[in-house]
Amino acid sequence: MILETATITVTPGREDEFVAAVEQQGRVVLERADGWRSLRVLRGIERPSVIQLHLEWETLEDHTEGFRGGPLFGEWRAVIGPFFAEPPQVEHWAPTA
Amino acid sequence: MILETATITVTPGREDEFVAAVEQQGRVVLERADGWRSLRVLRGIERPSVIQLHLEWETLEDHTEGFRGGPLFGEWRAVIGPFFAEPPQVEHWAPTA
Repeated sequence: MILETATITVTPGREDEFVAAVEQQGRVVLERADGWRSLRVLRGIERPSVIQLHLEWETLEDHTEGFRGGPLFGEWRAVIGPFFAEPPQVEHWAPTA
Repeated sequence: MILETATITVTPGREDEFVAAVEQQGRVVLERADGWRSLRVLRGIERPSVIQLHLEWETLEDHTEGFRGGPLFGEWRAVIGPFFAEPPQVEHWAPTA
């Protein structure tokens, strides 16, 4: 399992709309992705226009190759992209335990 | 519940030692903290000397006031501080669901 963190600065005032879009239309896209395990949507306390998505994938390649390189990525970006105020910052993390 | 993310750049070569210190001595300190719920230790895939700690607290103040303002914080920093290559970056996140 690996964790993807996507840190997204949303156009101010559209945060709630973005969260709803991710939880509804976005989640439906993820549910069709091979190796996708979970989604958690978090809002910054110090930076309220920043939303962080935590996504678990079975392997790194399930995200970076299968998802990003496949047909679902366009659907996903069509849902979330219109809310971006800045390019998203994406990182991957491996559990140590 | 709120999530604290602490992004810590560790002195290169000491990553495994840092993880072991957090999981062993660090966890014992956290277990005595009011409002602390969980700890997850993750290692950066793109940045292997960066370790991210995910800590869940019942409330923001359990971390920012109770823990940071209380006697356990010194013990915690004594465990993790010697490994810091840079000041840690700490943020707090609220679940949206």
